[in-house]
Amino acid sequence: MTGQELLTQLNWRYATKKFDPARTIPPEQWSVLERVLTLSPSSYGLQPYRCFVIQDADVRRRLREVSWNQPQITDASHLVVFTAMTSVTTELADRLVSRVAEVRGQSVDSLKGYRDMLAGFVEGAPAKGIQLDQWAGRQAYIALGVFLSAAAMMQIDACPMEGIDPAGYDQVLGLSAKGLRAYCVATAGYRAADDKYATLPKVRFKHEDVVTRV
Amino acid sequence: MTGQELLTQLNWRYATKKFDPARTIPPEQWSVLERVLTLSPSSYGLQPYRCFVIQDADVRRRLREVSWNQPQITDASHLVVFTAMTSVTTELADRLVSRVAEVRGQSVDSLKGYRDMLAGFVEGAPAKGIQLDQWAGRQAYIALGVFLSAAAMMQIDACPMEGIDPAGYDQVLGLSAKGLRAYCVATAGYRAADDKYATLPKVRFKHEDVVTRV
Repeated sequence: MTGQELLTQLNWRYATKKFDPARTIPPEQWSVLERVLTLSPSSYGLQPYRCFVIQDADVRRRLREVSWNQPQITDASHLVVFTAMTSVTTELADRLVSRVAEVRGQSVDSLKGYRDMLAGFVEGAPAKGIQLDQWAGRQAYIALGVFLSAAAMMQIDACPMEGIDPAGYDQVLGLSAKGLRAYCVATAGYRAADDKYATLPKVRFKHEDVVTRV
Repeated sequence: MTGQELLTQLNWRYATKKFDPARTIPPEQWSVLERVLTLSPSSYGLQPYRCFVIQDADVRRRLREVSWNQPQITDASHLVVFTAMTSVTTELADRLVSRVAEVRGQSVDSLKGYRDMLAGFVEGAPAKGIQLDQWAGRQAYIALGVFLSAAAMMQIDACPMEGIDPAGYDQVLGLSAKGLRAYCVATAGYRAADDKYATLPKVRFKHEDVVTRV
């Protein structure tokens, strides 16, 4: 796609406040957006995040209660909860090595150097001042960015929301038992015809205040 | 763009290890990618991140020294350093309110409720367990995700890299004096014809291991 088309789509998107509850993303389009969550880049490819796609109406209602009652949670076509691992150990490195071996038809033994590099990152992180839980959370935000971009490219509306109660999400989804913590959600669907935010001029800080050339 | 085109581009991309040092991203294409950094969504639109585009060859050489000598730092056409604010205060809320007033032709006074909401987020964050410096860092990662997606859509190669020494980046770019901390970089350009990583099958955990339907 051309750069101009890309900018047109990124300018078209906005944090949709009011979705049309009658419109659903077609399954073949949703499967693309869901796939994007897995295709997102992450540090070393370790993917220390997990996404929950909430289809159950009752669960969405309960999540709305722990999301300051924001209507998008139940009105949007789809809801994704972005979570990340609260503890990252060398077990994740071992799982990635097994997966690389599987996908690329190599033996785990032949990947020993690679495994040591990954495990070295995990084991050495604290000494370098990297809190692995926070690092995991940041990887989830790459996926959020890729997801929001993808929706915009496909002319699907979305709204990222950090205004959620992580403890409430934990309770509803049983996250801590899974070693996960919720950071944010993204709703996706189609803007309501009367969402007044749709026509407001987009506000960003001046380009030179965000980007510095050196 | 169609979902299939989107997936094709995301599958085409990979963390480019070897760039063709002779190829430069044309200025009109680069200006789109740079603009994407400013257009990235962020929580409340507060944009607590800053990006540095490093064009100076000497600065790039010095940054390579504090990036484990990874050749992409100097060989890629372009280098972006993603940084985020180490301290977020209500001053940022005031700056956003001024900007909204400017862009939308409103008075700052008429935005008092909006200002109070933003300031309330900043002031109330610690009590909710939100470390604002970490929060700011996560917003930078949304921009990273949007940037990597945009490059892929435009058939431009990129490589996100966390393997940098933040203290070294601080020293070279004078970040702490600006209230910023470096998190990661992205290099962009064109893959070298002999980058063996370009043809390796992409590895991701199984979709059902990353995405759970509820």
